[in-house]
Amino acid sequence: MTAPAPLDFAALLSSRARSMNASAIREILKVTQQPDVISFAGGLPAPELFPLDDVRSAAEAALDKYGPAALQYSTTEGHLPLREWIAAQAAIPAQNVQIVTGSQQGLDLLGKILISEGDTVLVEAPTYLGALQSFQPYGPRYVQLPTDEGGIDVDALAEILQTTGAKLLYAIPNFQNPTGRSLSAERRQKLVELTAQHGVLLIEDDPYGALRFSGEAAPSLYELGQRLWGDVNQNHVIYMSSFSKTLVPGLRDAWVQAAGPIIQKLIQAKQGADLHTPTLNQMIITELLPILPRQIETVKKAYGERAQHMLRRIGEQFPAGAQHTTPEGGMFLWITLPEGMNTTTMLERAVARKVAYVPGSPFFALGGGENTMRLSYSCATPEQIDRGIAALAQTIREELD
Amino acid sequence: MTAPAPLDFAALLSSRARSMNASAIREILKVTQQPDVISFAGGLPAPELFPLDDVRSAAEAALDKYGPAALQYSTTEGHLPLREWIAAQAAIPAQNVQIVTGSQQGLDLLGKILISEGDTVLVEAPTYLGALQSFQPYGPRYVQLPTDEGGIDVDALAEILQTTGAKLLYAIPNFQNPTGRSLSAERRQKLVELTAQHGVLLIEDDPYGALRFSGEAAPSLYELGQRLWGDVNQNHVIYMSSFSKTLVPGLRDAWVQAAGPIIQKLIQAKQGADLHTPTLNQMIITELLPILPRQIETVKKAYGERAQHMLRRIGEQFPAGAQHTTPEGGMFLWITLPEGMNTTTMLERAVARKVAYVPGSPFFALGGGENTMRLSYSCATPEQIDRGIAALAQTIREELD
Repeated sequence: MTAPAPLDFAALLSSRARSMNASAIREILKVTQQPDVISFAGGLPAPELFPLDDVRSAAEAALDKYGPAALQYSTTEGHLPLREWIAAQAAIPAQNVQIVTGSQQGLDLLGKILISEGDTVLVEAPTYLGALQSFQPYGPRYVQLPTDEGGIDVDALAEILQTTGAKLLYAIPNFQNPTGRSLSAERRQKLVELTAQHGVLLIEDDPYGALRFSGEAAPSLYELGQRLWGDVNQNHVIYMSSFSKTLVPGLRDAWVQAAGPIIQKLIQAKQGADLHTPTLNQMIITELLPILPRQIETVKKAYGERAQHMLRRIGEQFPAGAQHTTPEGGMFLWITLPEGMNTTTMLERAVARKVAYVPGSPFFALGGGENTMRLSYSCATPEQIDRGIAALAQTIREELD
Repeated sequence: MTAPAPLDFAALLSSRARSMNASAIREILKVTQQPDVISFAGGLPAPELFPLDDVRSAAEAALDKYGPAALQYSTTEGHLPLREWIAAQAAIPAQNVQIVTGSQQGLDLLGKILISEGDTVLVEAPTYLGALQSFQPYGPRYVQLPTDEGGIDVDALAEILQTTGAKLLYAIPNFQNPTGRSLSAERRQKLVELTAQHGVLLIEDDPYGALRFSGEAAPSLYELGQRLWGDVNQNHVIYMSSFSKTLVPGLRDAWVQAAGPIIQKLIQAKQGADLHTPTLNQMIITELLPILPRQIETVKKAYGERAQHMLRRIGEQFPAGAQHTTPEGGMFLWITLPEGMNTTTMLERAVARKVAYVPGSPFFALGGGENTMRLSYSCATPEQIDRGIAALAQTIREELD
């Protein structure tokens, strides 16, 4: 047989697939990955801080303890000792904890079970790009929530909840990606109450919360939800966190804690998505739990020093019109340049000066923020910060002129 | 604030989530997991054959070789040395290989990028239950393809393709789960040609192909597609396989090989689904590749002996009206009892006799097969086969009376 007419693959894609795009950041990172460019663009945890020897020992310990069971299929819910440890931290039953293959999978599965085509989803402006990417195939209609230094503007939220039939609100209350901002304690209470009153599910994405290097911790939205309802199975807050930023990201271990009816559907969705999170990986993480407090101290100290150093250099060298956030933890800070400037077109000139950042615009679900950028300090040495911020300051000054 | 009216979680689920159900097999397995029941119900690879010491050494080697990079975020496409090895086996470029977190993720992502609500998807009757579960949230309309000892009835397929506007055909040509049947060489050629002529994408799911313990191998559908088109980027066959049945399942490493336009969308879908398959796991699998041929020999030999023993006992003891398939590889065989019998209602009596199987009915997308059952021999000792088949034969005889 001779080959028939070639298939038109594009026409055979689902309508869902046609709405997907390559991650803007992924494309930007390709441009900036020249070896002599100092990149504040990535969002990677610092690899030199990874507890490599502890992981080696933990892998051995898991294989010794569980034998072939460490390499066999396992339950969709996840490794019970790990779920029990997570549950104990939150004072909830292990049945309310679902292990996922990285927070990204948590976002995908929550999108799958919660978002019908056309459902209104409230997101911060700006918000985590990866969440938008996970939700997109399920057809959300986004409404952006205005934010300021204290996080989501809850007065604006109150009005928005009156007029939109929102079903879901997605928030990152601690050291938000991309801004580094945190939601104030008072606003947290208000956010939890408002969403509860309007029957809106509240996803709290908290990968960075453990990495506070200054200031005072506020209660999690989940904890406030627990206090409000007094019943883990009525709590409308769905909490997500991860071992990626505290231990290591490459094992892909994260979790969701939520009310029973949400967890039940998550289990069904995860069965169809990957059956279960890799068995050995969950056991390695469990074996690493005793070193977690020490590791968190190490990471906090390093990131705190790097953030402080970057903020000092920005304060010294950036022109007066450039504003920056002052993160109390996490990996990112956010620069707002004077109105009318465009960080996307400026990036090429920055890279020519051997420094890179991520333009802020892709983090807005509905556009905006053309004059903003995200800087990551997590992987930067003092010397890289000195040179990189100097080059960036010069690029901005030139652009201003 | 006092708690407001409780949320109706069920009403907040997506319409997609409401179409999901707990896996029928999962529920059945719970019933059969009493310690004194001999279970032919599970579909697990034999854990005593896992290369535990090799995995231990491979994990050490990967951590030594790559250091912190073994624990860092990595590319969505997957670990390049692993993709290159897979690509070399199929004589295609590495760009046409996407690593996935178990074949189950491959099915989910393919469903996501290919199936729009209401699209017609052709599946074997019976087919792999997990594929139905992965595809279901994307809203397929199934059409069942009749099968016999030689696999899909391609004459019936030719007629069905005339009358349905099918977009996708999902097939398991080697030692199919659940039947253990293989598609004959002649029908493979016809299947590839017919789907190409009608512009229908063909997913070839091949987790068991390497585990042939008797008979002659036929070319893969993918290979026939390559011959037909002479261009990897025009091939309408999407091939999936896995290291779960040959090495170990708990690391969740599998792959998809397909034309460029399909792979490009898979990458975007996978970014939103879990960013990437765990880094260390892909490196461990890569380190294990040198022992793969030896391991395949070990597994084939064991499964071949177990299958033969089970078939012998079935031949000796099952009543004349019970038919069985004769698998040449893989982990499963399929029993068809006389019309009118019901293996679902019979299961309780079988479990009372301390033997378990999976009723065949859930493997039919549109129902049917009430008189069928799947037996797995992969984990059974000769003594368990002796006792279990005797108990099952007795249960069937009683039921027949």
